[in-house]
Amino acid sequence: MIFNSDIMSSIRISFLFLLMTMSSFAQEISPNQSKWIWYPGDFEVWLHTKVGCRRTERGQPYPPFWRIDSHYGVVIFSKKYDNPRTEKIEIYADGKYQLKVDGNIIYIFDPLNFQLPAGSHTIEFLVENFINVPSLMVKGESCFTDESWQVTNQNQKFYNAAAGRFTDPHVPPSTFHLSLKPVSCSIIERSANTMLVDFGKETFGKVIAEKVKGAGKLRLYYGETKQEALAETNAETYDYIDVNYNSARNDTTDTRAFRFIYSVWDSSVSIENISALYEYLPLEEKGYFECSDTLLNRIYNTSLYTLKLNTREFHLDGIKRDRWIWSGDAYQSYLMNFYTFFDEEVNKRTINALIGHDPVERHINTILDYSFYWLIGIYEHYIYTGDTAFIRQIYPRMKTLMEFSLGRSNKNGFVEGLPGDWVFIDWAPIEKTGEVSFEQLLLSRSLEVMSRCAGLTNDPASEEKYGKLSADLKQKILAAFWSDKRNAFLHTRINGVLSQNVTRYTNMFAILFDYVDEGKKQMIKENVILNDTILKITTPYMKFYELAALCEINEKEKVLQFVREYWGGMLDLGATTIWEAYDPTQKSDEHYAMYGRPFGKSLCHAWGANPVYLFGKYLLGVKPLAPGFKSYLVEPSLAGLQWIKGRVPTPHGNIEVYADRKIMKIKTVEGDGILRLHSKKQPVMEKGAGVKKLGENYYEIALDIPYKEYIVKYW
Amino acid sequence: MIFNSDIMSSIRISFLFLLMTMSSFAQEISPNQSKWIWYPGDFEVWLHTKVGCRRTERGQPYPPFWRIDSHYGVVIFSKKYDNPRTEKIEIYADGKYQLKVDGNIIYIFDPLNFQLPAGSHTIEFLVENFINVPSLMVKGESCFTDESWQVTNQNQKFYNAAAGRFTDPHVPPSTFHLSLKPVSCSIIERSANTMLVDFGKETFGKVIAEKVKGAGKLRLYYGETKQEALAETNAETYDYIDVNYNSARNDTTDTRAFRFIYSVWDSSVSIENISALYEYLPLEEKGYFECSDTLLNRIYNTSLYTLKLNTREFHLDGIKRDRWIWSGDAYQSYLMNFYTFFDEEVNKRTINALIGHDPVERHINTILDYSFYWLIGIYEHYIYTGDTAFIRQIYPRMKTLMEFSLGRSNKNGFVEGLPGDWVFIDWAPIEKTGEVSFEQLLLSRSLEVMSRCAGLTNDPASEEKYGKLSADLKQKILAAFWSDKRNAFLHTRINGVLSQNVTRYTNMFAILFDYVDEGKKQMIKENVILNDTILKITTPYMKFYELAALCEINEKEKVLQFVREYWGGMLDLGATTIWEAYDPTQKSDEHYAMYGRPFGKSLCHAWGANPVYLFGKYLLGVKPLAPGFKSYLVEPSLAGLQWIKGRVPTPHGNIEVYADRKIMKIKTVEGDGILRLHSKKQPVMEKGAGVKKLGENYYEIALDIPYKEYIVKYW
Repeated sequence: MIFNSDIMSSIRISFLFLLMTMSSFAQEISPNQSKWIWYPGDFEVWLHTKVGCRRTERGQPYPPFWRIDSHYGVVIFSKKYDNPRTEKIEIYADGKYQLKVDGNIIYIFDPLNFQLPAGSHTIEFLVENFINVPSLMVKGESCFTDESWQVTNQNQKFYNAAAGRFTDPHVPPSTFHLSLKPVSCSIIERSANTMLVDFGKETFGKVIAEKVKGAGKLRLYYGETKQEALAETNAETYDYIDVNYNSARNDTTDTRAFRFIYSVWDSSVSIENISALYEYLPLEEKGYFECSDTLLNRIYNTSLYTLKLNTREFHLDGIKRDRWIWSGDAYQSYLMNFYTFFDEEVNKRTINALIGHDPVERHINTILDYSFYWLIGIYEHYIYTGDTAFIRQIYPRMKTLMEFSLGRSNKNGFVEGLPGDWVFIDWAPIEKTGEVSFEQLLLSRSLEVMSRCAGLTNDPASEEKYGKLSADLKQKILAAFWSDKRNAFLHTRINGVLSQNVTRYTNMFAILFDYVDEGKKQMIKENVILNDTILKITTPYMKFYELAALCEINEKEKVLQFVREYWGGMLDLGATTIWEAYDPTQKSDEHYAMYGRPFGKSLCHAWGANPVYLFGKYLLGVKPLAPGFKSYLVEPSLAGLQWIKGRVPTPHGNIEVYADRKIMKIKTVEGDGILRLHSKKQPVMEKGAGVKKLGENYYEIALDIPYKEYIVKYW
Repeated sequence: MIFNSDIMSSIRISFLFLLMTMSSFAQEISPNQSKWIWYPGDFEVWLHTKVGCRRTERGQPYPPFWRIDSHYGVVIFSKKYDNPRTEKIEIYADGKYQLKVDGNIIYIFDPLNFQLPAGSHTIEFLVENFINVPSLMVKGESCFTDESWQVTNQNQKFYNAAAGRFTDPHVPPSTFHLSLKPVSCSIIERSANTMLVDFGKETFGKVIAEKVKGAGKLRLYYGETKQEALAETNAETYDYIDVNYNSARNDTTDTRAFRFIYSVWDSSVSIENISALYEYLPLEEKGYFECSDTLLNRIYNTSLYTLKLNTREFHLDGIKRDRWIWSGDAYQSYLMNFYTFFDEEVNKRTINALIGHDPVERHINTILDYSFYWLIGIYEHYIYTGDTAFIRQIYPRMKTLMEFSLGRSNKNGFVEGLPGDWVFIDWAPIEKTGEVSFEQLLLSRSLEVMSRCAGLTNDPASEEKYGKLSADLKQKILAAFWSDKRNAFLHTRINGVLSQNVTRYTNMFAILFDYVDEGKKQMIKENVILNDTILKITTPYMKFYELAALCEINEKEKVLQFVREYWGGMLDLGATTIWEAYDPTQKSDEHYAMYGRPFGKSLCHAWGANPVYLFGKYLLGVKPLAPGFKSYLVEPSLAGLQWIKGRVPTPHGNIEVYADRKIMKIKTVEGDGILRLHSKKQPVMEKGAGVKKLGENYYEIALDIPYKEYIVKYW
């Protein structure tokens, strides 16, 4: 009907076919190539409306309980250019669009052969799409869409456009989808109208009821355990399918998480088998870990599989139940991701989806701590990737959230849970009212991160303001909560009255954030972390930080022993993925209950996968010293093991590490590497490079040649 | 798959059929009946994403150039109830939903037979729908959805739910649509592959190309004039349709505005005729006007038809081109609506769609004056309808907009156009920079309105604050802009320097708002309004206010003479609807050009219909004296005519008025009516009720019996 609409409708039709046949992840980007662009954060906001609202609980829809924004339906992309001669461009848009050159609408043109006038001009594309995220691709020799284009939702604010891996003009961002692969199961029990099947391990996908015939109901009950599937309507998820004569079909459900499926059908219906389409985000296993302890290897591999199942459109908390993005959970997934897949896109997608649009009216996920993890997580992402463009893109929203948080601080400059705020910290019987010291610590760290990000985005006034606020707050925390009597941080202060209770949270984070001196670190270790009278942690979530803190203060053997017991305990109970919570004192089916429901607990929870991070960061010992691994440290640690080996991904390739009690082999990547190691006498390099002594039995070797294997003998 | 989804999908399917067969306007509401409810303003926000983005210009899409919000996709409706016994309710939702009783999810239930437990409980429905506006209907004896339910988008703010005329459980708000009626045309010219048709008058609808055969292009060029249709791609709107052998069809286009259609087809295509489906909002013509002057009657009827064509999902500016909601234009439509259709819903829909969602980042339609018209318009709506519930619903958004406006005022408390603001005032060559006195006047009136609405919504602090700001500003305007030399308001002050220019805008609004004393009103009349050296107004838009101001100062004969010349001038040129602008000095096709395009001018523009308001308010002389016509004035005025008669709608029925030079007949409605009239001696009532003398030859009669015809003789 209009010239460009013909093209658009043909693009739209082709999407439908493409959806089933190809993955948008297959596209690789070469430099100076045109990309689909969109309003920053809005591809993610759009995707989140779909993913966030897919949760069901026992047959009932269960969307998130915080405000979920839609994408902006009308945006304008613009670019100033200066071309010596006219240039042919091709135009692709996901949505209706209007083209202006220097403010004048172009009425009649061929979108696949538009002649861009020579000289200095501004082109603008107003794209409208309220169903899918409006996006644009322009392909030309010198004029093509990328992150240098400007975009606005017409609110007088202009940002650089966002782009991702979408470079095929026929595959716009709205075609985003995960991959599918058929998987089969074994039938364990079968009767005239029931069947129990086992997929061998926890999995995720669309269920296929094979060769269904007749008319009536088919009921599918999903179980992470056999008990859950057999519990029928007490299972957390199930589907009731209407079968009818006219459509004997392979019925496909929405995606579900399960190992077992119990199916029950009316006598008027028959069914031959069950299978599934495993749905997954194609992820390259760049990171890797192996050691002389086979139990730790099993724990590593089960953790890796757990993480993989939860690393999808976004970093999900768990695949069975919430299937939501929780900022505190996601923060751990960002870090684990860096030691496994190094998939930057899923981190950025998650960060963008969590914040949504202005106005900020509540904390992220309604949780005070989760706003702070969101802020801190962005800086961690930057440290590993060196992606300053992302910081510049997200910074305006970081600032809105921080100003919202500061606007709710009390007269002492501390934050407390106000009406509508959830102070989470952990699933644990702890006090959550008043000025909880843990929240102040997260706020102080968030302010520090804000200051650094302000520095990266040319906002010196905010850099100074947030830096000063952070430093002041750090002092106030020490003054208010450090107890010289208990030699530890106290938990909270309510209406000016200090609680004498000591919990692990503030204390272990003070070590992790390096907010206390060595003396205090040792006190915290003795008085809190290794003190059995202090309330123990029963979630892998907080274990993440406790074990990391122990690693930071060189208690790695203890950490491994704990991992063997705690994670090994779950494996002993038959876990094929790591659980949301695990209390070794529980018995039998008690393990599966949570939130007052017999199978409420998630048995495949991302935060349980933290050994992949701990082993990479503290055993292989690799971490960035400057953003994007411009410089990095390798400090392998056997922690009592015979040998360890593995890979840690970086933006420039994988660092490979091998260590036994006599030799270390490090294969470097681009960037200034440093190897540090303990040795009873001076280590020896194969080809005699410089070894520097740092202290008693402690040495440093510069790994200054990229992509080279360094072999070091030590004692 | 889930119990309630079966019901929902069957509801959804039935919608499709209903869409084509029935109108949602047919439903009438009886008290205590359950209604579909939604998040306040969001049905309108949702509808606006569709209506606002339908504009095309010469084949190109043309969405609005301000931020267009989507509705909230997830909302929670809740209600506390206290029932002596269990109650059966039926549940209907447009979207996936979750039901909680006292915070607990209900897992298995029949939505058409849910037993509400006895006692005191809270029920909550979380409804999710990102495509259509999430809405809910609960039908029960004592528990049913209406505006007493609470709703939140989960941002910690809770509002009363909104509802409208949707009371059929199978016809939720998302089925909203206008009505269709076939209309035909005459063929004026026909060749082998072209045809020019005439629908006899301007109309609006979907075009049907009848008995199209072959394969190739069919081009339809729309014209408000014959010239425009024949101008082909210089016409403001046209459609190119791909005809092919496989679908010889009655092809239906999107809705277009036209009187003439010029169609051109490829030689491989044939077509028999053109017809259309007239699309309209069913509106009752409650108001009516007729008089002894047939030209004025023609003007009234053409104005009424113009208003009808533009009164649709919302009050549109014009049907050919923008088809948008412009707040300044809509303000006039609200007022005209009260003297014609008294359709409260279209006013409320328009007001809601214009404001959208927080945050307010720009003025409404980007125009400074249009924010103020939005605020003032709400109060006018209240004055005519007495709808305090609507004030309570919209007040939070009024406050956000006013605070945004005040936040942009300068050190003098005056507003100026800041970057991104459009200072419109009128299509006229006038200065728009600096402290334009007209904008200050609108701000002062807006503050006054805010104060009154704060009073209606129990916000005494704001009532006082805004009231004081308004009074202060009024004084400051007089002090800054009234010139004792010119005896008029000056136009603007730029960087502290008063321009000596006098324009009509501030001066005539000062009369309309009653912001100056009688002495100044007379000075304004002589020095400005009746002064031909002051820049004349050439849009019916500003004529609206100028003529109303003249009526207010008793220059009604002059007003009628002007209406005859100006509106009559358009009729003489063959207008079947009233134009966006008319300059009698232009010649021939010059009349149709605007915005630099030969047919850019809208020839069917709502603001042109203002005689329907002027005649009803100032000739029939009916206006509310208290909100919702609780009391009202009737003061008929012949203004030189032999006789006038007509009806003015109120919430309680139509007031009927007849007057000639000897007699007046008034049929009353509920409310305290007052008749005022000039008579050379004391008027005489048919049945001898009390007549009060107000002044020299000026009398008042109480019309205190509702639905009675009062007959008054006078001299």
